[in-house]
Amino acid sequence: MDPASLSELRALLGEGALLDDPAERLAYGYDNSRRQALPDAVALPTTREEVIALVRWARMRRVPLVARGRGTNTTGASVPVEGGVVVGFERMNRILGIRPGDRCAVVEPGLLNGDLQLALRPHGLFWPPDPTSAPYCSVGGNIACNAGGPRAVKYGATRDNVLALTAVAGNGELLRFGAATSKSSTGYDLSRLLIGSEGTLALIVEASLRLVPVAPQRRVLRALYRDVDAAAQAVSRLMAQPVTPSMLEFMDADCVRLARDLGGVPLPDAGALLMIEADGDAQSLDAAIAALREAASGNGCLEVRDAIDAAQSEALWAARKALSPALRSIASGKINEDVVVPVSRIPDLLRRVGDIAERHALRIVCFGHAGNGNLHVNILYDADDATQERRASDALAEVFAATLSLGGQLSGEHGIGLAKRDFMAQALEPPTLEAMRAIKRVFDPDGILNPGKILPAGG
Amino acid sequence: MDPASLSELRALLGEGALLDDPAERLAYGYDNSRRQALPDAVALPTTREEVIALVRWARMRRVPLVARGRGTNTTGASVPVEGGVVVGFERMNRILGIRPGDRCAVVEPGLLNGDLQLALRPHGLFWPPDPTSAPYCSVGGNIACNAGGPRAVKYGATRDNVLALTAVAGNGELLRFGAATSKSSTGYDLSRLLIGSEGTLALIVEASLRLVPVAPQRRVLRALYRDVDAAAQAVSRLMAQPVTPSMLEFMDADCVRLARDLGGVPLPDAGALLMIEADGDAQSLDAAIAALREAASGNGCLEVRDAIDAAQSEALWAARKALSPALRSIASGKINEDVVVPVSRIPDLLRRVGDIAERHALRIVCFGHAGNGNLHVNILYDADDATQERRASDALAEVFAATLSLGGQLSGEHGIGLAKRDFMAQALEPPTLEAMRAIKRVFDPDGILNPGKILPAGG
Repeated sequence: MDPASLSELRALLGEGALLDDPAERLAYGYDNSRRQALPDAVALPTTREEVIALVRWARMRRVPLVARGRGTNTTGASVPVEGGVVVGFERMNRILGIRPGDRCAVVEPGLLNGDLQLALRPHGLFWPPDPTSAPYCSVGGNIACNAGGPRAVKYGATRDNVLALTAVAGNGELLRFGAATSKSSTGYDLSRLLIGSEGTLALIVEASLRLVPVAPQRRVLRALYRDVDAAAQAVSRLMAQPVTPSMLEFMDADCVRLARDLGGVPLPDAGALLMIEADGDAQSLDAAIAALREAASGNGCLEVRDAIDAAQSEALWAARKALSPALRSIASGKINEDVVVPVSRIPDLLRRVGDIAERHALRIVCFGHAGNGNLHVNILYDADDATQERRASDALAEVFAATLSLGGQLSGEHGIGLAKRDFMAQALEPPTLEAMRAIKRVFDPDGILNPGKILPAGG
Repeated sequence: MDPASLSELRALLGEGALLDDPAERLAYGYDNSRRQALPDAVALPTTREEVIALVRWARMRRVPLVARGRGTNTTGASVPVEGGVVVGFERMNRILGIRPGDRCAVVEPGLLNGDLQLALRPHGLFWPPDPTSAPYCSVGGNIACNAGGPRAVKYGATRDNVLALTAVAGNGELLRFGAATSKSSTGYDLSRLLIGSEGTLALIVEASLRLVPVAPQRRVLRALYRDVDAAAQAVSRLMAQPVTPSMLEFMDADCVRLARDLGGVPLPDAGALLMIEADGDAQSLDAAIAALREAASGNGCLEVRDAIDAAQSEALWAARKALSPALRSIASGKINEDVVVPVSRIPDLLRRVGDIAERHALRIVCFGHAGNGNLHVNILYDADDATQERRASDALAEVFAATLSLGGQLSGEHGIGLAKRDFMAQALEPPTLEAMRAIKRVFDPDGILNPGKILPAGG
C-alpha cells in the first residue's frame, strides 16, 4: 500500500490503530483453516464512526476490507486473499449493557464469547452459542459465521439468538434493525440476513443478544454402541421423543480410542459413543434422564452409563473438545468439514462416509453434534504424499455430494468461506445463487467487503 | 381486465381456477383490517409450475399479483389496492410429508394451521405459531406475516420455526433455500428474509416447518392486580427468572370486565389480570408453577389462583380470544395495534398509553402477549363521530411514537401491510429503509408483487 494511502488511513483512526509492519500484518492474515495471506494494513477501530470512515475510504479507493474477530474460523473466511485492510475488532470489545429483565445483552463485536458468559453468570443467564473456541473467539465472529456448538441442539445457534444488529454496509451506510424484543414483524429481517454472511455484506458494530436462563442442573449419560450405525439409529430415536437433550454428541470408534489414549478418559473400546446431556431442575431431571436412557438403548447398544460423575463428564467433554487437534497426532494432513443432514439421515450419511473411506483407502474420522445432524467429518491423510492428498480431496467432494443427496447442507456451523465456496454451485440452484449475488451487490455495490468468500464466481 | 388477458390467464391455470365474476372477486378483496379492494381476477393455482407461469405472465404484462392465504391478517396486507390478480393458495393445501424423526413437516402454503396441528397430534408434535385465527388461517399467511400467538413466549414465532422454503420470486425464478436441518450456515439466509415479507418479495410454494414435541401437561395460574402498573411489574419479574412460561397473557381492567360480562367467566373486578401457563412433565410442573407464582406475587398483586381447573382455564382463554371482537360491542370504531417493547418497558408503555387516552379523552383497552412485550392496544371511538375518529388517529400516532421511544417496534406479529406502512419512516432510519427497498428490487424488479405494502414511497 502506498504511503499516501497509509497516511490517509492513519488519519481516520486513533493513535496506534493502524498496523503496517509486516510482522504485525502477518498475525492478522491467517485463520484456523491454516490458510494465510498478507494484508496491506491492519486497522483496529474503536468506534463505529471510525468503521464508517474506514468503509467510505475503502469504497473510494476500491480497497478490500476483511473483518476479523479472533481468526478462529476454519474456512478461510477471515483470510485477506485479495489483500487490502484487515479490520480487527479486538478494541471494540465492550459490554454496553446487560438487561436481565429483557433477557438481552448489548455488546460490541470484538467482545470474547467467554468474557460475555462470565459477565452473564451472576445474572443466571447465558448466550447459547458455545463453539469449542468460546473462551477466545469473538461474538462478532460468531455472528459472522452463524456459530453453533454442542448446546445448539436445545438452545439454537447464533441466528436463533440475536435480536438486533447495527452494522456498516459496504456502501458506507449505518444500518440499524431489530429491537431488544423477542418478537418483531416490522419489515424485512436484515439481522438474520447478516448473520452467517461472513463479513461480505456489512461490518457489525453492535449486537443485541438474546439471553437464556442457565438451567439449575445438568446430568450426562454415556452410551456405547457396537458400531456407528447403531449409534446413529439411537440418535434418531433420541430426537424423535419429547425430551430435547441439551447436548447430544457423537464419536466414532477412532474418537473413542483417541479420547482414551490421548485424553486419558477411562473408556472401553466401542464402535461408537454418544454423550447425552439433559439440563433442568432437580424435579424434572430424573424423568428426563430416564426418557433419554430409554431412547438411547436398543439394538446394538452395549451400555448406557447413567449419572457419570461431574469429573468423568468433564473429562469426557474435554477429550471430545481435544479431538480436533488430537487428530493431527495420527495424520499430518486433515480436512475437517461440518456437513449437516436431517437427523433421520445420519445413519445413511455415516454408511456413505464409510464407503468413501474404503474406496479411497483413507481414514475418515467422525464426531460432532449429532442432535442437529451436524457431523465433523475428518478426512486424514499423509500431507507428504501427493496421491493421498489428491484422494482426500476427491473423498471430500464425495462427502459433500452424499450430504446434498441426503437433503443436507455443506455447513452446519463453520460457514463457507473459501473452503466450501466452490461447492456452493452444487448446493444451491443457479437462481438462488444469483439472488445471493444480487443481495451482495445491494449491500456492497463495489465488492470491497471480504471479496472472494462464500459466493463462487459467475452469474 | 381485458378479455384477451383473461384468456391468457385462464390458459395458464387448470379448469375452474380463474375467477372473474365480480361477486367472487369481491370475496378475495378484503382482510380482517376491514379494508377492501376489488381485484381484476382471482387465480387459484394447484401447482408450483402454475405459480411460476402466473408470475412470468404478470411480469410480462406488468400486472400486480397479491398472494392470499385466508385473509385473516389485520393490516391490509392481502388487499389488492392496485388491482391485478389475487393469487389464492387455498388449493395448494397438501401436507407433503411429516417426518417425526427430523421434527419436520413439509407442506404447501394453503394448508390451514389448524389442519396441520390436527395431523401432527398423533405424532406428539406441534408447529408453534398459534395465532388466534389458527383454525382458519393458512401456514403461508403465517409465514408471510411472521405470525406469533400466545405460545411464542416459549416456542418462538413463525420466523423461529421454519427450516426451508421454496418460493417463486417476482422475477419468475424458483428459489429453494434451507434444509430440513436444525442448523445451517450455507450462504445468506433467504428463508428468514422471506418470512414476514408479506408477499412483496416472492410467492411461497412449499415450506419445511420446524416441529416441537407437545409437553405432556399444562397448568395455568390466574393473577389479579390492583392496576396495570402492578401487573406490568410482575411481567418483568416473571421474565427475569429462569422458568419460561408457555403463555403469559395480560388483560387490563376493561378486558377483565368484558371477560366476565360477555365471556361469562367468573371474575372479580381487578385493575389487571395475568394468565400464566407452564407446560412440562408432571415431575417438573409443581416447581415451575411455584416459581411463577412467586414471581407473579408482590406489590399490587391481589390474588394468585393456582391450579384453576381445565374448564375455568379454557373459559378464561376463550374469553381472552373473544376480546378483540367483543370490543366492537362497546364502541363502533376500533384501531387494534400490536406494538412490541422490551419486557422491562411494558410499565412505561402502559403508563404512556394511559396518558394518551386521557389527553385525547378516548378509551384505550390493552391486552396481549406480555411475555414478549407484545401488546394489543385497542383505541376505541365512535365511528359516526368525525372528531373522535380524528382523535383516535392522533392517539395511534402517539402510541407508535411512545413505542419507538421505548426501544420497541411497530408490530410484533401482525406485520405492516397498509396499516403501518406510513409509520415505517419513523421506525427505521433512511439507509435501513433504502436497503429494504433495494432488496425488494432484487426479488421483484418490476414491482408486481403486492405493490404498496410494507415500504412507504420514496427513496
